[in-house]
Amino acid sequence: MLRRPGDVVVEERPIPRAGPAEVVVRVSSVGVCGSDTHYYDHGRIGRFVMEKPLVLGHEAAGEVTDLGPGVTRLTVGQRVSIEPGVPDLTCTQCLAGRYNLCPNMQFFATPPIDGAFAEYVVVHEAFAHPVPEGIGDDAAALLEPLSVGIWACTKAGVTAGSRVLITGAGPIGLVSVQTALAFGATEIIVSDVNPARLALALELGATTVVDARDSSVTELETPPGILLECSGHPPAINEAIRALGPAGRAVLVGMGGDEIPLPLSVVQERELEVTGTFRYANTWPTAIALVASGRVDVDRLVTGTYRLDQVEQALTAGRRDRGSVKVVVHPQT
Amino acid sequence: MLRRPGDVVVEERPIPRAGPAEVVVRVSSVGVCGSDTHYYDHGRIGRFVMEKPLVLGHEAAGEVTDLGPGVTRLTVGQRVSIEPGVPDLTCTQCLAGRYNLCPNMQFFATPPIDGAFAEYVVVHEAFAHPVPEGIGDDAAALLEPLSVGIWACTKAGVTAGSRVLITGAGPIGLVSVQTALAFGATEIIVSDVNPARLALALELGATTVVDARDSSVTELETPPGILLECSGHPPAINEAIRALGPAGRAVLVGMGGDEIPLPLSVVQERELEVTGTFRYANTWPTAIALVASGRVDVDRLVTGTYRLDQVEQALTAGRRDRGSVKVVVHPQT
Amino acid sequence: MLRRPGDVVVEERPIPRAGPAEVVVRVSSVGVCGSDTHYYDHGRIGRFVMEKPLVLGHEAAGEVTDLGPGVTRLTVGQRVSIEPGVPDLTCTQCLAGRYNLCPNMQFFATPPIDGAFAEYVVVHEAFAHPVPEGIGDDAAALLEPLSVGIWACTKAGVTAGSRVLITGAGPIGLVSVQTALAFGATEIIVSDVNPARLALALELGATTVVDARDSSVTELETPPGILLECSGHPPAINEAIRALGPAGRAVLVGMGGDEIPLPLSVVQERELEVTGTFRYANTWPTAIALVASGRVDVDRLVTGTYRLDQVEQALTAGRRDRGSVKVVVHPQT
Amino acid sequence: MLRRPGDVVVEERPIPRAGPAEVVVRVSSVGVCGSDTHYYDHGRIGRFVMEKPLVLGHEAAGEVTDLGPGVTRLTVGQRVSIEPGVPDLTCTQCLAGRYNLCPNMQFFATPPIDGAFAEYVVVHEAFAHPVPEGIGDDAAALLEPLSVGIWACTKAGVTAGSRVLITGAGPIGLVSVQTALAFGATEIIVSDVNPARLALALELGATTVVDARDSSVTELETPPGILLECSGHPPAINEAIRALGPAGRAVLVGMGGDEIPLPLSVVQERELEVTGTFRYANTWPTAIALVASGRVDVDRLVTGTYRLDQVEQALTAGRRDRGSVKVVVHPQT
Repeated sequence: MLRRPGDVVVEERPIPRAGPAEVVVRVSSVGVCGSDTHYYDHGRIGRFVMEKPLVLGHEAAGEVTDLGPGVTRLTVGQRVSIEPGVPDLTCTQCLAGRYNLCPNMQFFATPPIDGAFAEYVVVHEAFAHPVPEGIGDDAAALLEPLSVGIWACTKAGVTAGSRVLITGAGPIGLVSVQTALAFGATEIIVSDVNPARLALALELGATTVVDARDSSVTELETPPGILLECSGHPPAINEAIRALGPAGRAVLVGMGGDEIPLPLSVVQERELEVTGTFRYANTWPTAIALVASGRVDVDRLVTGTYRLDQVEQALTAGRRDRGSVKVVVHPQT
Repeated sequence: MLRRPGDVVVEERPIPRAGPAEVVVRVSSVGVCGSDTHYYDHGRIGRFVMEKPLVLGHEAAGEVTDLGPGVTRLTVGQRVSIEPGVPDLTCTQCLAGRYNLCPNMQFFATPPIDGAFAEYVVVHEAFAHPVPEGIGDDAAALLEPLSVGIWACTKAGVTAGSRVLITGAGPIGLVSVQTALAFGATEIIVSDVNPARLALALELGATTVVDARDSSVTELETPPGILLECSGHPPAINEAIRALGPAGRAVLVGMGGDEIPLPLSVVQERELEVTGTFRYANTWPTAIALVASGRVDVDRLVTGTYRLDQVEQALTAGRRDRGSVKVVVHPQT
Repeated sequence: MLRRPGDVVVEERPIPRAGPAEVVVRVSSVGVCGSDTHYYDHGRIGRFVMEKPLVLGHEAAGEVTDLGPGVTRLTVGQRVSIEPGVPDLTCTQCLAGRYNLCPNMQFFATPPIDGAFAEYVVVHEAFAHPVPEGIGDDAAALLEPLSVGIWACTKAGVTAGSRVLITGAGPIGLVSVQTALAFGATEIIVSDVNPARLALALELGATTVVDARDSSVTELETPPGILLECSGHPPAINEAIRALGPAGRAVLVGMGGDEIPLPLSVVQERELEVTGTFRYANTWPTAIALVASGRVDVDRLVTGTYRLDQVEQALTAGRRDRGSVKVVVHPQT
Repeated sequence: MLRRPGDVVVEERPIPRAGPAEVVVRVSSVGVCGSDTHYYDHGRIGRFVMEKPLVLGHEAAGEVTDLGPGVTRLTVGQRVSIEPGVPDLTCTQCLAGRYNLCPNMQFFATPPIDGAFAEYVVVHEAFAHPVPEGIGDDAAALLEPLSVGIWACTKAGVTAGSRVLITGAGPIGLVSVQTALAFGATEIIVSDVNPARLALALELGATTVVDARDSSVTELETPPGILLECSGHPPAINEAIRALGPAGRAVLVGMGGDEIPLPLSVVQERELEVTGTFRYANTWPTAIALVASGRVDVDRLVTGTYRLDQVEQALTAGRRDRGSVKVVVHPQT
């Protein structure tokens, strides 16, 4: 539990109880996300502000241990990957299939909703997705960041033969490399300032890497048709948009503050489409299919494993080790 | 002919000859566009720079007077509206149906291609669109700005019941009011700083007007789902994007320089889609259908008529008269 | 209440009570739909079979008279139009925004769910849509068939300048004429075998009518780009699909049995898209906007009004009077 | 040259000359397509009837040996894959990016246009696509059938995680297996009556095969979301459409005569989208990217190689050998 920025404690709490259509899940693995680290450091992300102690963690998997009234889709003992946001289901956005934009979303580890750095959590049965045996606990947890990549590729329209530029080779940039490949991209250019991450991008299937310290993505011989922006760095965003060819699509995934400079005349002359992503919707079936079929191997991103009493170390791993990509917490160990 | 910024002369030239698949058109009406005025004032628009004398004018209609070899679709005497850009037809963009993004486009009154403030022009038969009797000469010429509005509405996905915000009530903003109505929009909010233009917007069918000098479009009770940005004014663009509701679409039509501040976090949290338009593609059939069926009355925008020897007055009409919206030149008078 | 085919009785029942998130609505107007008549005549529609007495009626409007626990969007006294199907909200189809395809849909007057030929009904608050004063009771009820037309036009991609063929000028065909106009269609060809209905189609805005007894829609000079098939008559469907031009879209709305002959080679050579509609999703906001703005006048379709004790007459009106288009029942009179 | 059904001769002709924007290509490899065999057997395919001797073959690759006037994109010596249809470029369909629907298309081996079973052919430079070294001659020729698969997957919206049913495991069905995988499909069910072809489908990546002689695709545990129909067999088409889940898409690729029975009520209740393909548009860049990147290995489909004087044997290979999938002719050997 994060009491205030920089202050994490483990607290004993009763096992939560499942309400109607909900299940209790004993958590087996939880990934640490940049947003967890951001709350740990700053106590807020943009307009989401922590006003009381908060349990972090929203990339979680586990086993169903109890069923609330009316649960029909799950049984005790089933292994599930948790989709960490439950919308109100009946607002305009939900009914239109855009439940990620629901104004009444209850999202793990987003104030004031507690997250999954816990032994047990409760979730609506429709958002606890059964996973097959072939998907391990860590992979089941990492379907969440994989969903971010899937959503970005979906919004971007990545398809067979796409030429994709990915700016920023952090966990989301790297998972996007894997996802773009799974969507059929045949050229994937990754830019970053960290050579270790660029090397990892190549290992994961990037076809070209650009060290942004000494080259510009605008100098690519053939302009890419799609940008998955994962750096959140305003000048990089601007430059990356300028790198796109006619009718290109830019999906801004990386959070980078309130405003960025948009190259208007380029957007107009090339009729670029620019959009941003906010979480994801309806991605778990695809995420499960991609991992179960071996198209994506999210385990390759895991660079460290921690116990629940080591959450603080998990939250600060990236700061201590530039080679750290994705660390996971195993609450039952 | 514009010899240099601010210096227009009428020059005698031989009647041009039609090449293969081309026709000669005797021009009956040509609208004056903001871009014409911009070349007149500055000799350039962004990366398009006038390097030698240029005939302005690209909103033109007339009558076919001669056929080049191989013309099959037109006959002498037919009245046509001219689509003023001819692409190379075989590049990647053209073959994909995005001929407006053709890198080899030959566009009237865009350096070094001469425009239509002339008695006769030559155009490819596929871009000289026959118009029915019910469409007058001025209206036939104004299918060009109408196409800008149609393209914007198409890109924006305006449909029955849409709630549309139009920022900027110049000729393109006003034609967009008419177009958005024809696409089925039931709520059209127009903002501008010129009360006369807001009044005209109301007459043309806007349901709400906002005087941007003392109100903000971000204060609308229900946020619109679509923005047609026609002001080109960077702070207005930023504010208008912020006014959109979840999953909104912003189409940036107004040219406003190289960069604008984009509200990134709003684009992400609401998953807005932002794009720009560059001319239009495949809009003439729709434009003809809308005017011929009476859905759009472009003649209502005409505030002045000039002879060819008055082109300079036509180009400066907007500067002299705040009530001026769209002026046309009749080269045969 | 329909006890068995051809046997309707009025039964006294207690006023129903609203469960969580539900409201009680005192019904002011209910339209009679072809499906009501079909249950009256045959006791089934395809795979939906009446196994016990059934209250018919699913085009309903009224006033909220009681609120169940947790209702937040409505208040007692509000006038509402009822969307007559409530999905489970959490299945794959619902979460994807296609709640009309929900396998667990509870739909008024579809066995075994009772409908709205009643003084009071209960409905989930999210499916009781408030209507403004300008929309009368009958119009509020008829937002349901209007939704069928809106959904068809949405699926078909009707937009400004569309050329639309509507086969069958029954209530759905006629409402589709109105809807296609509201979506911007500039040419609307209607075919039927009933001259009175073709005359009404012309009054409502059709631009051409074809008496299918002596002409064929395949002989139209310019092939339409869109077909809204509202006859359900297999040979007419086949012929109408053959009438479409390249890249045309056919939306099959009229129910016409299990199989129809599809002109495969035409579908392939012209790359036609053929689809069907099943009810509608997310159409009420558009329906309300179209009626409130005056774009569509559904009251023009009403040819008769009945009391609750005259339901049987209402159900058989079409059989007695060829000029009958849409009749409504007023349960409070 | 096919003089009449069943009568093929080799004829000496002068090397053709390239007109404006055209190039001469010395053909290195030409695939034999079912349509070639069909003309050989019947002298016609549907409305396309052979009225004079016809050179067959439209899956061709080779080397540029001469340039016509105005060619700018190609040089002598370049290896190219030929897109065998040249549209008029300026009709409504072409300008909209649907050049495959151009009414004036000149297509190889479609009467009266000669095809590519020849030493030299002439083609417009925009339709002679340069191929990199990594793509061999046969593969370059087979980009044509690959394009059929790409177009089908594009129309069907195959994407990451798609569950795809492919009916018919002939050359197009098998290439569609490969293409669907490249588009990200994670489940591919193939049905056919030929066990050898089903075995090959599994080798190429199908996840399930159904022997249509004793099982039905309607009995699949989870209904697929996409159908790529490659059998052209009317009862199989009907059954396959019935196998789709809600909101499924069916793309009818296999030619199967004038009419098929369409399960209307299923199309409506599940809101299926049914379409057909006619050739392809804008697929070569994707085809080249997929083969060059190793995503698709079209060489695996080649089961026989013939000289130009063996064309008749090539045309009848499938009839003699049930294991034959795709044979190619090498005109220079």
